Amino acid sequence: MDQVEQYLAENAEQFVEDLKSLLRIQSVSADSAFAAEMTKAAEFVRDQLLTAGLSAEIIPTAGHSIVYGEWLGAADAPTALIYGHYDVQPPDPLDEWDSQPFEPDIRNGRIYARGATDDKGQMLTHVKSVQAWMKTHGRLPVNVKFVIEGEEEVGSDNLDKFLAANQDKLKADIAVVSDTSQYAPDIPAITYGLKGIVACEITLRGPNQDLHSGMFGGSVANPANALAALLGGLIDADGRITVSEFYDDVVDLTEQERAAFAALPFSETAFKNSLGVADVFGESGFSTIERRWARPTCDVNGMISGYTGEGPKTIIPSWASAKISCRLVPDQNPRKVVQALEDHLRAHLRPGLAMEFKTYHGADPLVIDTESAFMNSARNAIEKSFGVAPVMIREGGSIPVVASFKRILGVDTLLLGWGQNTDNLHSPNEHFSLKDYQRGIRASAHLWNELA
Amino acid sequence: MDQVEQYLAENAEQFVEDLKSLLRIQSVSADSAFAAEMTKAAEFVRDQLLTAGLSAEIIPTAGHSIVYGEWLGAADAPTALIYGHYDVQPPDPLDEWDSQPFEPDIRNGRIYARGATDDKGQMLTHVKSVQAWMKTHGRLPVNVKFVIEGEEEVGSDNLDKFLAANQDKLKADIAVVSDTSQYAPDIPAITYGLKGIVACEITLRGPNQDLHSGMFGGSVANPANALAALLGGLIDADGRITVSEFYDDVVDLTEQERAAFAALPFSETAFKNSLGVADVFGESGFSTIERRWARPTCDVNGMISGYTGEGPKTIIPSWASAKISCRLVPDQNPRKVVQALEDHLRAHLRPGLAMEFKTYHGADPLVIDTESAFMNSARNAIEKSFGVAPVMIREGGSIPVVASFKRILGVDTLLLGWGQNTDNLHSPNEHFSLKDYQRGIRASAHLWNELA
Repeated sequence: MDQVEQYLAENAEQFVEDLKSLLRIQSVSADSAFAAEMTKAAEFVRDQLLTAGLSAEIIPTAGHSIVYGEWLGAADAPTALIYGHYDVQPPDPLDEWDSQPFEPDIRNGRIYARGATDDKGQMLTHVKSVQAWMKTHGRLPVNVKFVIEGEEEVGSDNLDKFLAANQDKLKADIAVVSDTSQYAPDIPAITYGLKGIVACEITLRGPNQDLHSGMFGGSVANPANALAALLGGLIDADGRITVSEFYDDVVDLTEQERAAFAALPFSETAFKNSLGVADVFGESGFSTIERRWARPTCDVNGMISGYTGEGPKTIIPSWASAKISCRLVPDQNPRKVVQALEDHLRAHLRPGLAMEFKTYHGADPLVIDTESAFMNSARNAIEKSFGVAPVMIREGGSIPVVASFKRILGVDTLLLGWGQNTDNLHSPNEHFSLKDYQRGIRASAHLWNELA
Repeated sequence: MDQVEQYLAENAEQFVEDLKSLLRIQSVSADSAFAAEMTKAAEFVRDQLLTAGLSAEIIPTAGHSIVYGEWLGAADAPTALIYGHYDVQPPDPLDEWDSQPFEPDIRNGRIYARGATDDKGQMLTHVKSVQAWMKTHGRLPVNVKFVIEGEEEVGSDNLDKFLAANQDKLKADIAVVSDTSQYAPDIPAITYGLKGIVACEITLRGPNQDLHSGMFGGSVANPANALAALLGGLIDADGRITVSEFYDDVVDLTEQERAAFAALPFSETAFKNSLGVADVFGESGFSTIERRWARPTCDVNGMISGYTGEGPKTIIPSWASAKISCRLVPDQNPRKVVQALEDHLRAHLRPGLAMEFKTYHGADPLVIDTESAFMNSARNAIEKSFGVAPVMIREGGSIPVVASFKRILGVDTLLLGWGQNTDNLHSPNEHFSLKDYQRGIRASAHLWNELA
């Protein structure tokens, strides 16, 4: 490990330059206007894998391509399947960024750019740790297979098909994913539970055009009022979701988990201050940590109807639309939940309106065994890089691939997050601590050793 | 009247050309980007009054100018105060227009353009009828004073001040306004009741930036969900507005009115078909006509929050905003209603959110005496032009100036609508029947005779 550590130290600056180059590529998967940038990002990742000393290729899918790379020279050693994604969330709202989202800017030891932490920066830690082994030893202690996709932010529609079609090629003993966070600065964590997700969009159509609210008010259902009634009715005053059967399959937190969560350092005041809110809100009867990590949620992600420009315009809008996502916990089933949601919305629709319901994507929730040998290797690797053992946490985010790895390849996943909750992923001013970037690379380098 | 009628017949085409010229001017009062067009429209109206043989001037206000014109040569005859407005609603959504909103296009005997019926076309009928008298007789049977404002679509903020400061100049026996509709094609109407209005905008602010819905879902109130809950809660399943005290001052319809409304030809099926809705919806216990004309309403005119682009984006939006308008009936008070609405919304706000509440404008509801001598003159004038006596109706629209005329100048108003409910005012493809335009001019010409 000494040679590896020395290589990491000597190349730390170059690792940052490589990250900056990747962050300059506007790989927004949700918007077809960025298709050429998506291709550019895939090519960049492939070239990084080649530079690290792996074989690498770009594999087309029905959507955005998957980058695959491997080194399989460690006979009798285990095989790690490393997953990441090169696509990013849209950068809107642009006017809330302090620097350009695709022009990485380093301030106070952090690199600011869309995708800095989610997931370009975190994903690159494993490429760089592999590079360090290959450049210093010409080999790795384990076999590695990289799968870096371009559709994580839009539901990974083509990944499962790729996994199913390449089960032999992708055969592995353990998967490694860095797309989560540390518990807090200098409190590294391993995430053993993830929420699932369903996302959908509904559009209500009423009159065939916008109507004068004086002439026609009171005569027909207003799509904006009706959409508000539907969305507003989804959560009651206690923060409970009102969709019938929604909670039927929810596995309660164990007393042990509740105690462990309660023992973690957490200041609700600091939390509120960091978000700029006067109070927290959510399902009554649960702590803020419990709600974030282990209770299902239902959020309106966006909505639009009628006139939204300057000044008043007294109309009944012709249509109204909203995007909704529900975060799920074991053993909720995404397909069952989205069907219950659609049924609920249709049942509460006001007369004279037509509803279009579009499902975007789903992912199963999951929890992982915290006592496996792989989990112990990861704990050791992290302790060696960070100087402190990681805490065991769950997370509210959804990483569909983890459920897919289990279901399709039969492999468990180590969720080793190098980021911070405060890194603004999916928000303006997304960033990644360069210290976390370098410690992540080092922990990853140790992990290959520990696994072997 | 023979000479007048002949002049009208001979100049019908020129009257349409003048209307087209006015419709080409993009006089959108709500948007400051159109300020120069507003000035152009005022100048055009002034020149039309001068051409008609009146004295005319443009009078600046703190907002958009008022055009004033007069002819006072009929000693001992009554004085009519004619009101109209040269400003129009914004033309959005532009892509739903079949022709350009500011390039008037005649199809099937109708002229299509923003403002065609509301109110450029209707307003111009009185200018042209006066022109006919002046060009044929060198005089009018009555005195006339024109007040044509440029802020009707944004609340007439400066009109009341103008009226109050010019009470002598504006002294009149009766006001005449054509900014309403006939009951139906070939069923002319006099409108004796108007709704009032209050319009406002609310913005809910939550977290200081958009948040990842997985990482933060369940921890803080989502402004979009919370706004939906507030707006959705404003109307119950029976179509009743839930704001406490909202209905306290509502004067019930008389049995006579209900019977008269019920006797009017009205096909609910045709109404639904014209709007493209499968069903009507509104306050239970009232007919569709009653709800439109004489029951208060509460409409969301627009709302926006979070991500509204292509594909999913699973965030908790930082803020959410909506425009709301309530249409009022006698004896509801706009100030009292908007205060009750604000109180209601604040009382139901979820924890951790800040609410901004902005009031746009208000207007009192009113009903007018249907048995006055002026009303009889109007009935006769309309019958002479249209060949049929008008029906007496109320309307859901708000024309604040009518209440102002009564309150400030002590004068009643004849609401003589030449338009149709189906003219798409405030909507894409606004239009005005050229037959109604010419019949309106003729009825107006008769009105000056009847009033004298």
